[in-house]
Amino acid sequence: MSMPGLSAERHDRHRVTLQVIAEKLSLSTATVSLALRDSAVVAEATKRKVQELARELGYVYNRSAASLRTARTNMIAVGFHDITNPYFAELLSAIEETVSGSGRTVLLGTYAESLEKQARVLSTLREYRPDGMILCAAGGTTPESLNQLTAAGIPVVQVSREIAGVDLDFVGSDDARGTTVAVEHLIGLGHRRIAMIGGSDLISTGRARRRGYSETLARHGLPVEPALIVEGYGTRETGFRGIEALMQLPDPPTAAVCFNDLAAFGAMLGLRHAGREAGRDFSIVGCDDVAEAAQWFPALTTLHNHQDEMGRKAAELLVRRIENPGAPTRRIILEPSLVIRGTTAPPQR
Amino acid sequence: MSMPGLSAERHDRHRVTLQVIAEKLSLSTATVSLALRDSAVVAEATKRKVQELARELGYVYNRSAASLRTARTNMIAVGFHDITNPYFAELLSAIEETVSGSGRTVLLGTYAESLEKQARVLSTLREYRPDGMILCAAGGTTPESLNQLTAAGIPVVQVSREIAGVDLDFVGSDDARGTTVAVEHLIGLGHRRIAMIGGSDLISTGRARRRGYSETLARHGLPVEPALIVEGYGTRETGFRGIEALMQLPDPPTAAVCFNDLAAFGAMLGLRHAGREAGRDFSIVGCDDVAEAAQWFPALTTLHNHQDEMGRKAAELLVRRIENPGAPTRRIILEPSLVIRGTTAPPQR
Repeated sequence: MSMPGLSAERHDRHRVTLQVIAEKLSLSTATVSLALRDSAVVAEATKRKVQELARELGYVYNRSAASLRTARTNMIAVGFHDITNPYFAELLSAIEETVSGSGRTVLLGTYAESLEKQARVLSTLREYRPDGMILCAAGGTTPESLNQLTAAGIPVVQVSREIAGVDLDFVGSDDARGTTVAVEHLIGLGHRRIAMIGGSDLISTGRARRRGYSETLARHGLPVEPALIVEGYGTRETGFRGIEALMQLPDPPTAAVCFNDLAAFGAMLGLRHAGREAGRDFSIVGCDDVAEAAQWFPALTTLHNHQDEMGRKAAELLVRRIENPGAPTRRIILEPSLVIRGTTAPPQR
Repeated sequence: MSMPGLSAERHDRHRVTLQVIAEKLSLSTATVSLALRDSAVVAEATKRKVQELARELGYVYNRSAASLRTARTNMIAVGFHDITNPYFAELLSAIEETVSGSGRTVLLGTYAESLEKQARVLSTLREYRPDGMILCAAGGTTPESLNQLTAAGIPVVQVSREIAGVDLDFVGSDDARGTTVAVEHLIGLGHRRIAMIGGSDLISTGRARRRGYSETLARHGLPVEPALIVEGYGTRETGFRGIEALMQLPDPPTAAVCFNDLAAFGAMLGLRHAGREAGRDFSIVGCDDVAEAAQWFPALTTLHNHQDEMGRKAAELLVRRIENPGAPTRRIILEPSLVIRGTTAPPQR
């Protein structure tokens, strides 16, 4: 007798079917099935009896079989580029909590910023036939690649990053407005040479935050100098290398707005390596307000980006979309708010 | 014509069945099915033809139907208490990457430290009939609650935290050894009054790290004082409140080992609020070496806890267990290594 056989036998011994419950209670399997799904059609007393017996017998609802009957899998696929960025971990956590509150479970796929990996991951996630998908697409994603998902009949909500030219629900931040507020805070403190560290044209948040930066400088009569703009995704490394390069300029800036908190942390670290301190020798503004932002020394001045609310709203939009596939698409834009802490101060004379 | 109807119609138009592919290529549906699953039984040339046509036609493999036939869902459930702790985000990221490399996808559930929520989440995850589960159980979890999972025939691998008395594969750290190394580092620097901040008896990592602390002090002839031991889960708050309480003692300690990096960050913040600085006025050792540990100021002396390797090994053990359910259980214990940075120094005179 092989070991796998033994295990299958043990498995079967514990498997209790609808049929058994139905027989024991002299009900039809249809009634038992409805009772287990808490249907309003079945009388309360009957439901209680069925559910109690199911619990006693260790009955495990077979979602796989159920999903073939109902065409619902109760899974929500989430495609993110990176969950070790605390911003996305916090966003995922809010999504998972909201989704599980509606009786669904998160199916997770990640793809760094690789379009090729994203294509593979999204195609795999699709195979599980999730009821819907929440997506923060990799940099450079085309509308066509998302149209494939929607053509397959899967409701999709975009979160944080937006691919233009697709008719999908979206929840994100007013990113241009956020950077505007950040730059105006620095100008108000007396800064005139302000850098922008991080931000890629391949993602909507990168484009919008850079637009907010350039337009605000221009509106205040300040030149937009390419040398003060550091390209790159929002990583600690982008921030570290960015400040290093900026400090080597003949006429270095006195302040920087960063694409996100991670880039800001990297920039603060880079300043220290150069013997300088954020909030004293140089001003830094982040974006996101992840948990560690308040705990850096000095604590980071940053834009609170509402990841809790963003995750919750994305999950809610998706549930609405699943229940009403034909409803007009919605765009929910949250307003970032500036949290002034210790990394911004007037420029040194 | 209702909107949902429209959407369903669009869905159907794009759905291509095995049947269609089989007819177009004059093959049996069984051959097509095997070819799509890349079976070695089907000739390479046939497989290529089938897979190309499937791609052209936008065929989406129906995992739900397939799982009923093969009894495999290609899903790995992951149950964690918290993913906003970067240690667990990094662990989850490593698991997700390894699992997706083996053609499977992560189904995620979280439950804070709530036993009641954990019971609900694990029961829900079970309903999806994952091929297996990777679990870091909430504090106070009983062997019985895990036996329910294994009795249902689901392979389970425990990661990081271990529930004793269950015969399950486990990957974790030699936690007692880690704290021993940390305490000996502090004793070597000349510290004699060393606190332990964070650690709960409800979790194996808490018990082991505290045991390492007490035994090491005793071995060096130092008293174990209850006043120097701060209870609590490994959160920033535990660290912050813990250092606050320790600093108010008549004879405060000069150093502390912390349950994890989050507690250490909280403690460093608490020191600053009291006008003191880690590495100058007080020594701090963390545990985990999450990404931000190297970037604090001063950078955190901590135990590198190999979350990448731990996640990868957990996924590998689970895949092995799925393929060979009867194999003897394995315990893989990784050795933490001390990373000395800026938060530890000899005590001030």
